[in-house]
Amino acid sequence: MTQSGTPDAFGSVYRLLSGAVTPRPIAWVSSRSPDGHDNLAPYSFFNVVSVDPPILMFSPVGRAPDGLKDTARNILGSAGTDEPGDGDDEGSGEFVVQLVSVDLAEEMNASSATLAHGESEFEHAGVTPVEAEEVDAARVAEAPVAFECELDEAHGVGGSTMILGEVVRAHVDEALLTDGEFDVTEYDPLGRLSGGLYCDTRTRIELERPP
Amino acid sequence: MTQSGTPDAFGSVYRLLSGAVTPRPIAWVSSRSPDGHDNLAPYSFFNVVSVDPPILMFSPVGRAPDGLKDTARNILGSAGTDEPGDGDDEGSGEFVVQLVSVDLAEEMNASSATLAHGESEFEHAGVTPVEAEEVDAARVAEAPVAFECELDEAHGVGGSTMILGEVVRAHVDEALLTDGEFDVTEYDPLGRLSGGLYCDTRTRIELERPP
Repeated sequence: MTQSGTPDAFGSVYRLLSGAVTPRPIAWVSSRSPDGHDNLAPYSFFNVVSVDPPILMFSPVGRAPDGLKDTARNILGSAGTDEPGDGDDEGSGEFVVQLVSVDLAEEMNASSATLAHGESEFEHAGVTPVEAEEVDAARVAEAPVAFECELDEAHGVGGSTMILGEVVRAHVDEALLTDGEFDVTEYDPLGRLSGGLYCDTRTRIELERPP
Repeated sequence: MTQSGTPDAFGSVYRLLSGAVTPRPIAWVSSRSPDGHDNLAPYSFFNVVSVDPPILMFSPVGRAPDGLKDTARNILGSAGTDEPGDGDDEGSGEFVVQLVSVDLAEEMNASSATLAHGESEFEHAGVTPVEAEEVDAARVAEAPVAFECELDEAHGVGGSTMILGEVVRAHVDEALLTDGEFDVTEYDPLGRLSGGLYCDTRTRIELERPP
């Protein structure tokens, strides 16, 4: 039997959406504040939007002027837009999206802690910052894949701020490459479910693509 | 060791993005054409964008005027925008996002076949169309969760058309509800990997959320 109703008829709308839209990939996003602080935080409202050119989307909860998370404020400035700002109000327009394998689950989770201003999520999570090549941010040395991104566009959508970035440089653990191409059969990603739950993807199902 | 380069330095950019941004949730989207044909197709460039109000995003490859997929053309009209069109060029502005459990893998996959115009993906996939309550589309009776959506906005992004819809009604298998709320521990979603590969989410990892 099926129960039907408005989304809020099921109690927490967050619980309904975050439980049903699963499993989600995890963007472990690093960005840099105007005073040079390196931020690192995970987001699972995240996916590819376009392949050619390669554009990724993630959508932190909160909107300008008062609700922007550090990641969004670092990238977009305090106005929360993709328009140039001025001085300290201008965002960097740049960030790195790391992907998360199962062996980095604890580090990713630790980076979501609320830290005192100026305390480093890299240090708190026990991962190593390496300077990105094309963008003004640090990347996580231990991550299996890192995509350096330049801001493409940003939109306030509902209660969130949707950020789209174009991948300008990729870093891939060579253990995940076969004949120079990404080999998903060698990759062990962590998936996001809901509440405190995550999943691995080790039980795989092969389907023949229909003509 | 890590290999670094532009995204196209790894061979297929599609393979890199679709392999690394994993596991992805699957939107099994039903929509209706101006002449009343019910379309059904799966998309995994898909996620939640906002919880309050509840807004979902999916991003089919292709852009107007020549590259729109049936799903996008049904929702947006042949101009591929969220602006009202006229007559047969106007999109319905409405659709249903079904979620996909492991036991519906074969049916979901079958619905991605290229069929002759007018042939039904519902019939081809062996699933039952039921009229939606708030939007002009059929929903899949067998789906564990279905979200009826009204178009919020649409943007051409790179080579794709990103479609955002607000959830106006939800249908949930009551086996997935505990005390009336969605219970992810009862849900068995199918995840999308890359190529012909999918995964289940049955091996779960619990992490304590840091303060």
